[in-house]
Amino acid sequence: MEIAILGGTGDIGEGLALRWAKDTDHTLVVGSRDAEKAADSAADYEATLADRGRSVDVDGVTNPEAAARADVVVAAVPAYHLTDTVEAVADDLGDAILVSPAVGMKRDEDGFHYNRPGVGSVTELAANAAPEGTPVVGAFHNLAAGRLSDLDATLEWDTIVVGDDGDAKATVRDLAEGIEGLRALDGGPLANAAEVEGLTPLLINVARHNDGLHDLGVRFN
Amino acid sequence: MEIAILGGTGDIGEGLALRWAKDTDHTLVVGSRDAEKAADSAADYEATLADRGRSVDVDGVTNPEAAARADVVVAAVPAYHLTDTVEAVADDLGDAILVSPAVGMKRDEDGFHYNRPGVGSVTELAANAAPEGTPVVGAFHNLAAGRLSDLDATLEWDTIVVGDDGDAKATVRDLAEGIEGLRALDGGPLANAAEVEGLTPLLINVARHNDGLHDLGVRFN
Repeated sequence: MEIAILGGTGDIGEGLALRWAKDTDHTLVVGSRDAEKAADSAADYEATLADRGRSVDVDGVTNPEAAARADVVVAAVPAYHLTDTVEAVADDLGDAILVSPAVGMKRDEDGFHYNRPGVGSVTELAANAAPEGTPVVGAFHNLAAGRLSDLDATLEWDTIVVGDDGDAKATVRDLAEGIEGLRALDGGPLANAAEVEGLTPLLINVARHNDGLHDLGVRFN
Repeated sequence: MEIAILGGTGDIGEGLALRWAKDTDHTLVVGSRDAEKAADSAADYEATLADRGRSVDVDGVTNPEAAARADVVVAAVPAYHLTDTVEAVADDLGDAILVSPAVGMKRDEDGFHYNRPGVGSVTELAANAAPEGTPVVGAFHNLAAGRLSDLDATLEWDTIVVGDDGDAKATVRDLAEGIEGLRALDGGPLANAAEVEGLTPLLINVARHNDGLHDLGVRFN
């Protein structure tokens, strides 16, 4: 399967790219608004994997070029860039599945808080911006980018997958479970995305207030 | 330490009472609006523990009587009864710490959703209803009552403790960690309670959509 990571030069994009490159045989393409930045990051990821004795080819291209090639397109961009990013690749998505991992947060003196968009969730923002017929799936909202990118770190995390298209959701769950230590759980339809996204500020607050805990994820049990 | 569990005849109250009775030497008193119901539940809890070879005395009295005796008062009532319950014991709290485990949820065809009160969280509703000077701590929001009450079930859960009074929070963290398999983590001030409460509908949604998972809690790692 070919996976495009839009905003693949950012921290969560880096983590997903490195993990999929390490643990699976999927073809990865890094997208960015700036093709040169994308190519630089792709070369960095190849080098990181080569250091671990794993030879992979990762291309870096513009977001629309990346989207045009892929079966699954992950919009690994901040929530405030999500609508623009999805609209910029709308004509290139073809039959691809669009995956949204973004969370909107605001910070005050007490901690981080979930900043819920009027449409219900950031994942539903992505769905609203996507072309009709493109299946949209929410996933990877609660992964700590720092640990995800550190290939020496083992994961023992769950990711909750939400969406209204069962086949698309099953594909994304399989992709997620290709990453060692990651278990994909079904969170139900897109309308349940807010509760998933709201877990991310909690993870940050807990990490800030407890010595020895950082880069947190969760396991449901 | 003496712990009063207001609404201690309900499911989360039962679970907390049984676990503290099993795992600690704290004195427990069950409160209810109806003294007879409280006494019946207290006798049931004593019998459950006796079946396991553990002899404990649990009293069952009205909520105000329970509050008057206790060092820590847990308002284990549904969110829509919380303000009334706290106001009914306000004159009896003395120097006690008030603990709020309640979460407001609404359910639709998609799943359960967090029903955030205008004051920010249900825990802050409790704080607003409490007398001035009573320290209010949010805890035990994310525990599945069914498993908590099943003393044969082992727990491997975290509970996030929020509050503005550091000493009160430390006391409640110690109480929580007295329960075997429960780890208490600091979530910061009361203003961070919404993100903690919002985890509960997610736990329910995940349990509903994944075969083999039920009565879920989380561990942060």
